[in-house]
Amino acid sequence: MASGAPWVLSQVQVVAEAVATVAFALSGVIEAARKRLDAVGICVVGGLAAFGGGTVRDVVLDRRPLFWVQHAGWLWALLALCIAAMAFMRARHLEPTERAMQWPDAIGLGLFTASGTQIALDSGMPAIVAVLLGMVTAVFGGVLRDVVCNEIPRAFHDHRPYAICAFAGGWVLVATQVLSLPGWVSLTAAALVTTSLRAAAIVCDWRLPEWQASRRL
Amino acid sequence: MASGAPWVLSQVQVVAEAVATVAFALSGVIEAARKRLDAVGICVVGGLAAFGGGTVRDVVLDRRPLFWVQHAGWLWALLALCIAAMAFMRARHLEPTERAMQWPDAIGLGLFTASGTQIALDSGMPAIVAVLLGMVTAVFGGVLRDVVCNEIPRAFHDHRPYAICAFAGGWVLVATQVLSLPGWVSLTAAALVTTSLRAAAIVCDWRLPEWQASRRL
Amino acid sequence: MASGAPWVLSQVQVVAEAVATVAFALSGVIEAARKRLDAVGICVVGGLAAFGGGTVRDVVLDRRPLFWVQHAGWLWALLALCIAAMAFMRARHLEPTERAMQWPDAIGLGLFTASGTQIALDSGMPAIVAVLLGMVTAVFGGVLRDVVCNEIPRAFHDHRPYAICAFAGGWVLVATQVLSLPGWVSLTAAALVTTSLRAAAIVCDWRLPEWQASRRL
Repeated sequence: MASGAPWVLSQVQVVAEAVATVAFALSGVIEAARKRLDAVGICVVGGLAAFGGGTVRDVVLDRRPLFWVQHAGWLWALLALCIAAMAFMRARHLEPTERAMQWPDAIGLGLFTASGTQIALDSGMPAIVAVLLGMVTAVFGGVLRDVVCNEIPRAFHDHRPYAICAFAGGWVLVATQVLSLPGWVSLTAAALVTTSLRAAAIVCDWRLPEWQASRRL
Repeated sequence: MASGAPWVLSQVQVVAEAVATVAFALSGVIEAARKRLDAVGICVVGGLAAFGGGTVRDVVLDRRPLFWVQHAGWLWALLALCIAAMAFMRARHLEPTERAMQWPDAIGLGLFTASGTQIALDSGMPAIVAVLLGMVTAVFGGVLRDVVCNEIPRAFHDHRPYAICAFAGGWVLVATQVLSLPGWVSLTAAALVTTSLRAAAIVCDWRLPEWQASRRL
Repeated sequence: MASGAPWVLSQVQVVAEAVATVAFALSGVIEAARKRLDAVGICVVGGLAAFGGGTVRDVVLDRRPLFWVQHAGWLWALLALCIAAMAFMRARHLEPTERAMQWPDAIGLGLFTASGTQIALDSGMPAIVAVLLGMVTAVFGGVLRDVVCNEIPRAFHDHRPYAICAFAGGWVLVATQVLSLPGWVSLTAAALVTTSLRAAAIVCDWRLPEWQASRRL
């Protein structure tokens, strides 16, 4: 993807993407356990949270094979992760709290936004579509997770900036590409901006406004 | 699409489609505001309601680029519309009532049915599939809107003819094509029949039957 | 699909697939009637339950035309089935109980798993992906049915082995293909194993474990 990236950076990226995917999968596992799903439901919801966003992006772009088809090892890793998480939850009565999950999740948000936007740009999409698809990559895993668990998606509901950080980060990537900066610079900048905004939103407790329906609605 | 359409009619069609898209987007904005979603949720649900039906149709037909990718200006327009609607709701405590929305929605139902059925026929689909996809174009935006908002889709639930008007209108388009009428005639006839049926259903308060589950179920 | 299959077996397969599709469609009709959907909702949910799994599989594999587009007669049959079921429910206050539905549903689970896994293998998918897509073919119709009806999907929630039987059956098909057994043998074996496991799960009342979230979550 980022052809100019030095070897070290591409290794860092692989590690970071793995961390991000694990964080997203665990968010699915935790939500499924909360909803008292069975072992199958936990694995499926974990998989939807981890791979759902990228899958929706690839269907929109008509890219095949899907990334989890091309790298089927991810499916085995996901299965192992879900089984390990279930064993761990059973033994320890579930240690990973949602607060602890926020930080890997913020890293995942940044990385998936950057890589998703880049992939869409590489497919020749206009800037607004690429930014939107970067956001979809980062956010729609969680949306599918919540829809299957019969909840309004948290990304649309909890009034803390989440998708909007991805939106901002996507534009950073577009801007750095217009400036012809090297690929690894723009990917890093986009991921950093997204993750920093999300981290700032958590630390400073920023809130998005809400619109309450009046009686006339 | 309708190559024989005179210039005036094609202008009318563009205006009418814009009205329809706006009506569908506003239905999403209103439902999202009711559910107290945040600003991101309002924009996403508005977008799903406006573009979701056509996107499902295009994925089934494997048409790429998707229409909102090809005409990315629609995304900017949608964003502007959602921001304007939110500002308006905040200032005025939300004026557009659901009753007022029924009429542009009925126009949208007719137009999306006609154009969706035509696109499917142009892709070589058999008549029943084309009619189904015309219905999907017109109805599935609202279905996705309701699923994300954690409701049973209103189109399947409120016992007022909605999708069934689209179904009838689609067959009108198929019939007029069998009769080799010019393209703009069949599109206009299908849209008019769909919208008129929906308008009649609203005015006369027609009801679809319901099937209540017995105890033996 | 199974080119070595004798003529009688291929006839059996057609009949069995029809039984399975009808069972899945009826599960949608019954759930829709329970939720008091209208006539349109009953037909749509019946169609989602019958065709949803195969459609998701085909979108992932990028196979076009979709099977219900290629064989549009299925859509007519589905429409006729739903109308007949509604007429029957109205006349008799709904005879088909969920218990009676379990057995055709188990047959459908086996057949859809076998054919879905085979189709994915024929498309050159790796084994784990093919097994997953066989499971998706068999299970995601029910998942979509439950999501549209605003329920947590039963397949993830009721703690009775269902998707996991499909998972096991898919591996049987992969194993028999590695052993170069004739196509009809591996399809039959996979379907039989899946259906038998499901039947045993129903008869013996097997339960999957559940993971309850602790307070620390």
